[in-house]
Amino acid sequence: MEFVNKKGGLLGGGQLGRMFMQEAINLNLEVKILDPDPMAPCSKFCNEFVVGNLMDEETVYAFGKDCDWLSIEIEHVNVNALKRLKNEGVRIVPDPELLEIVQDKGHQKNLYKTLKLPSPAYVLIENKAELNTARQTFPFVQKLRKGGYDGKGVQVIRNRADWEEKGWDAPSVIEEMASIEKELAVIVARDSFGGMSVYEPVGMDFNPKANLVEVLHYPSGLPEEVNQKAKALAQNLAGSILKEGLLAVEMFLTSTGELLINEIAPRTHNSGHHTIEASLTSQFAQHARIMAGMPVGDGLMTSPAAMLNILGEPGFSGPAKYTGLEKALAIPGVYVNLYGKAITKPMRKMGHLTVLAKDWVSLNQKIVQVKGLIKVQS
Amino acid sequence: MEFVNKKGGLLGGGQLGRMFMQEAINLNLEVKILDPDPMAPCSKFCNEFVVGNLMDEETVYAFGKDCDWLSIEIEHVNVNALKRLKNEGVRIVPDPELLEIVQDKGHQKNLYKTLKLPSPAYVLIENKAELNTARQTFPFVQKLRKGGYDGKGVQVIRNRADWEEKGWDAPSVIEEMASIEKELAVIVARDSFGGMSVYEPVGMDFNPKANLVEVLHYPSGLPEEVNQKAKALAQNLAGSILKEGLLAVEMFLTSTGELLINEIAPRTHNSGHHTIEASLTSQFAQHARIMAGMPVGDGLMTSPAAMLNILGEPGFSGPAKYTGLEKALAIPGVYVNLYGKAITKPMRKMGHLTVLAKDWVSLNQKIVQVKGLIKVQS
Repeated sequence: MEFVNKKGGLLGGGQLGRMFMQEAINLNLEVKILDPDPMAPCSKFCNEFVVGNLMDEETVYAFGKDCDWLSIEIEHVNVNALKRLKNEGVRIVPDPELLEIVQDKGHQKNLYKTLKLPSPAYVLIENKAELNTARQTFPFVQKLRKGGYDGKGVQVIRNRADWEEKGWDAPSVIEEMASIEKELAVIVARDSFGGMSVYEPVGMDFNPKANLVEVLHYPSGLPEEVNQKAKALAQNLAGSILKEGLLAVEMFLTSTGELLINEIAPRTHNSGHHTIEASLTSQFAQHARIMAGMPVGDGLMTSPAAMLNILGEPGFSGPAKYTGLEKALAIPGVYVNLYGKAITKPMRKMGHLTVLAKDWVSLNQKIVQVKGLIKVQS
Repeated sequence: MEFVNKKGGLLGGGQLGRMFMQEAINLNLEVKILDPDPMAPCSKFCNEFVVGNLMDEETVYAFGKDCDWLSIEIEHVNVNALKRLKNEGVRIVPDPELLEIVQDKGHQKNLYKTLKLPSPAYVLIENKAELNTARQTFPFVQKLRKGGYDGKGVQVIRNRADWEEKGWDAPSVIEEMASIEKELAVIVARDSFGGMSVYEPVGMDFNPKANLVEVLHYPSGLPEEVNQKAKALAQNLAGSILKEGLLAVEMFLTSTGELLINEIAPRTHNSGHHTIEASLTSQFAQHARIMAGMPVGDGLMTSPAAMLNILGEPGFSGPAKYTGLEKALAIPGVYVNLYGKAITKPMRKMGHLTVLAKDWVSLNQKIVQVKGLIKVQS
């Protein structure tokens, strides 16, 4: 097969795009990137950087019409433009129809139901008043159907008073609160030949304030049968809905040992950053291979690892200053990946740390050692 | 310590600069790059790309004068400009004085003599006529003192007739031909705190036609005592001459078991590409850490590896087309790193392959499998 480098476009120029570009370079991929922020993390590291609104149909269409392929690093993009481009022969990864489902958490829930895949029980409401009709019992989780990300647009409603006070008056998923033992995630990569690579599950500890992953463990630390079940669930789902591309599947392990799908993202994901250092082929390398028309690689785990997000310190907004980097980098097997964001904000994702260790015990020792070492202030 | 991102410059925008940038991105390094070729491998992947002659004093001086630091990916750069910039307070890595020595193979040889480090016996000549005075016996190796790279500017002279026919009439090193059992190389990284990381030696098999490394083995496959001696020699040399930066030391193991220094390069090196996938910290990550004012990382070997250059097929010059990429990438533990060169030429370095395997036997099986799989034609 002759490799002819086709011209591609990526929607979104944030950290996921930046890490994609680091790998795309290895395959000579020619990539232009669209992002609303002229200072986006990718702005200096692509073949062409275009400033524009990802949700504007004509902007996305104009950006994509001279591309052979288009892909995303964020799901909040205009799907109509992608459908038009697909009709005109542009290869779109992931498929616009899948993207449309994922953009709406109500559609996501309906999808799991259709596929008979386990997920917390739910009802959909159009507005606040509809809840009484739906006769939901408390407590529950309210998720806005559209526009949420990184835990934004998701809230726990404890009781009737809580609902009256802070319930959102917008189309929402009203979801039964699962009794969560552990949150985990599995990433699947699928190439255009149908080849699939399924990563080992990660276990995630969340920062309750920011609703962001604080520490991610790889492997998950859960029993092997749970890991196997989680991988099978993710593979099953990807087999049903993913033509090509990446799929991150976030799940709950409940206190009764059930695995429930929480949500999915058809792209590279925060729960897969450790694959850069701890897998034979990283999620970003998979994305680059897929876009190059190459087979996915082996995602085999090469080392136990942990990932910690580096978040903007609360109380600081402005040009970012980092302290503690040299201490973290002095520890063998610690990797720092900064995202090139000039401005820090409270709890903004500014980078991440990956920690490799030979076993679970030394991994947890290193996590204690590095946690809080790096501070991002202004 | 507060990390303030200082503005840096890199002289040379080829593949070494490109792989440096892939790592520099992780530390938010702001890097502008100077290269004579507007289409150089780095041209799209740096904060600012400047086209200009690396050997022109005023060009290099003007490029560097607003930088906090300057480094190189090629040693053929104007040293006078770097000396002026150093005097004006710009941090230059490597030191211009070391660069000046390395640019002249005669000075290199004199350095080894001064430091009492083993290297093949030699005489220096200014021109062809001087050889008789120097009374060199045949065979020998003639190396042009200046301007050589990738084996260019080096030739074997078998006998008097050979010399008459093809001897270069230029300042040269006339070097005794070592009886070479194996060529090996060691890379050392040194940070501004004096910290040093010494990589395991690699063993190199050369392509006799192109005088380029064809296959590199990591570890070298040589006895442990030879590896230890090679590391000690490189560390000793770096300790003497390298203030901060990288040093690649190429050596001969002779048939009598002696280690002789062949030549050195104070930068990232072709013999260290495998460290990207097969070490805790790659040579490029070390370079990025050093320029960021961070400590060097642990260069620990994480897997046996081999590196094969991907060279332009003889007989083809023009826009590059690749075949076989998908076959190579389908083999687990095979990595392709292309350099983004639009034009192929016979034996031009277009990329490299890294192969990981669990042991020496399976490594060599994989080498057989991938060798010749990828072809670069036009």
